[in-house]
Amino acid sequence: MRPVAIVGIGQTPVGEHWSSSLRMLAADAIHHAFQDASLRQVDSLYIGNAYGAAFSSQQQLGSLVADYAGLGNIEACTLEAGDASGAAALRAGYLAVASGAVETALVLGVEKSTDTIGSAHVEARGVSLDADYEAAHGVTLTALAALLMRRYMYEHGLPLDAFEGFSINAHANGARSEYAMFRNLIKPGRFAKAPMIADPVSLFDSAPDGDGAAAVILTSAERAADLVAQPVIIAASAAATDTLALQDRADMLHLKAVQSSASRAFAQAGLQPDDVSFFELHDAYTVLSALALEASGFAERGQGCALAQSNSIGLTSKLPLSTFGGLKARGNPAGATGIYQAVEATMQLRGIAGANQVVGAKVGLLQNLGGLGSSAYTHILRV
Amino acid sequence: MRPVAIVGIGQTPVGEHWSSSLRMLAADAIHHAFQDASLRQVDSLYIGNAYGAAFSSQQQLGSLVADYAGLGNIEACTLEAGDASGAAALRAGYLAVASGAVETALVLGVEKSTDTIGSAHVEARGVSLDADYEAAHGVTLTALAALLMRRYMYEHGLPLDAFEGFSINAHANGARSEYAMFRNLIKPGRFAKAPMIADPVSLFDSAPDGDGAAAVILTSAERAADLVAQPVIIAASAAATDTLALQDRADMLHLKAVQSSASRAFAQAGLQPDDVSFFELHDAYTVLSALALEASGFAERGQGCALAQSNSIGLTSKLPLSTFGGLKARGNPAGATGIYQAVEATMQLRGIAGANQVVGAKVGLLQNLGGLGSSAYTHILRV
Repeated sequence: MRPVAIVGIGQTPVGEHWSSSLRMLAADAIHHAFQDASLRQVDSLYIGNAYGAAFSSQQQLGSLVADYAGLGNIEACTLEAGDASGAAALRAGYLAVASGAVETALVLGVEKSTDTIGSAHVEARGVSLDADYEAAHGVTLTALAALLMRRYMYEHGLPLDAFEGFSINAHANGARSEYAMFRNLIKPGRFAKAPMIADPVSLFDSAPDGDGAAAVILTSAERAADLVAQPVIIAASAAATDTLALQDRADMLHLKAVQSSASRAFAQAGLQPDDVSFFELHDAYTVLSALALEASGFAERGQGCALAQSNSIGLTSKLPLSTFGGLKARGNPAGATGIYQAVEATMQLRGIAGANQVVGAKVGLLQNLGGLGSSAYTHILRV
Repeated sequence: MRPVAIVGIGQTPVGEHWSSSLRMLAADAIHHAFQDASLRQVDSLYIGNAYGAAFSSQQQLGSLVADYAGLGNIEACTLEAGDASGAAALRAGYLAVASGAVETALVLGVEKSTDTIGSAHVEARGVSLDADYEAAHGVTLTALAALLMRRYMYEHGLPLDAFEGFSINAHANGARSEYAMFRNLIKPGRFAKAPMIADPVSLFDSAPDGDGAAAVILTSAERAADLVAQPVIIAASAAATDTLALQDRADMLHLKAVQSSASRAFAQAGLQPDDVSFFELHDAYTVLSALALEASGFAERGQGCALAQSNSIGLTSKLPLSTFGGLKARGNPAGATGIYQAVEATMQLRGIAGANQVVGAKVGLLQNLGGLGSSAYTHILRV
């Protein structure tokens, strides 16, 4: 396998884009990525999209986007792994270039969430759950996250406000970014008083769905050196799965797929958790942040929240999390989230993250999950 | 890139499996593939599925199937490119193994078509069309195929029965296979009198949707030699796209994506059309067969049907087509079709195709399309 680098990035702000369709969002992010990379053509396109059929009655996005974005009749297809679809596409592009079959790959994450709204939106999102044993009975991802969080609080004897650090940090970082959906700050003490969605998961705990698209252009590290001043290397790419239904897990407080993908990613890169400059994690719910920190080797079991409480996750701390606001504040355009993470990490490693910059960032850890850890992708980027 | 081989195959019959769910069909095909390969474990799973969300409200199949089929917490995701999803998954598995990142990959194609029936089924299938400019206006894939066929007949001055050879051949081959959905023969002269679905596309012209799952196990050619007596080599894998909407094509009677993927596949394998022992083509409609033969280098423009008329496509002819019945008679479990083609081609190349055997088969050409050639994948298998 040859080393692979990111040589172009593009993104749209995350939000409610009522005047942009799915294909328009996609073309916008692609346009920015081409501008950034000073390239005019790529050999193939891999798209992360989770809910095109459910939200917009639109699949076969490969053909649609390749044509609409003016890419010619290149190879193109969609990768789907629930909300980890973006990272699945990143891994597909990585493998295609690493194999030598493809010289330059465009990886796009796109989601048009607002094509379906209200209760129809909630129902449509259920396609990522177990249709027969979860969704058919009316349970939602947020309701399942509430069960998980309640269990976590019970097992580890934690109060609700133990989780507030994650959301406060995400909103503090989102407030500095023009691409973030939510730029308001959350004041300490307000988290536990927020309106409940599914008790104990509140409005300040749950990441918002949003419209958005992000794109990265990949090529061989050898060629990248000729193209851009600061190529960012994909030092590791690993994926794993856990049961789709939460009820099927022997130990629901251990994210097996996260542990498997993270440990293999560290081994591939020859790195340890201590080497990580920042961690773009899948903070769809604060309990997922706590569990992911534990399963990825940053905290002992039950100690994930302690990291957030000791203010060790801010931009100037030892392990900055969600440096552009994460899913919670930047927003969660589901199938695009994994590519937003890659774009943000590339900005950090290039040193162009502006008000969100982690000084001296050398190693970025990215983790994108489907469901409550049913699919897990861990990538490590470095300069 | 290292050479990649198929070392295991499995399939379910195609049909209306009212008592099997999507996950059950998947596990059945996987079980057969493991038995065939004498393997117990694989490193990753790539799934071709086109309509899980639209038919069954079920996505994130990677996690669901990996768990249900007892594969452990391996990497797993879905590939989607309309009805070419199966071949997209095959190419993903091929690249993963060729890159060296994965030692053994399981590639599954699965579709549970009968979870949605009647007009809801027709509407659900519309997700593979252009949602804004085709499906929203009520047009279906079959209606578009009818427009394409009418144009082809007009341009080339052909009567309806010029196409009958494709369907007669498909049903003759399907009648010999226990996995085929339709095993009845079509008598010469009956094709042009069949009930119309969308004039001039009739019941004897259009491939039926069906439930089904098929699986292949891939590993490096080097390792394959130790595992099985007759490893089948993936000699080429190429993909391309055309516009999603038919109306956007400058010349709708030329399948650009087919031409691009086929010519690159032949170049990769160092072969010519004359070297092909048999061709598993995407015969969803007879006009697609004619156009694919032309775009793939087997016939001049307007001459695709002439091949079928001269009986040069039967099992004992120069270019056997759809040797197990193709989409028309074996049935079209959309996202699984590309993997059925791979299973059938492997049977031919191993010489275990029984009553469907093409004597002395050495090179198999496989072509799987999304829409009316919006996505095109061409693979070449050989012994």
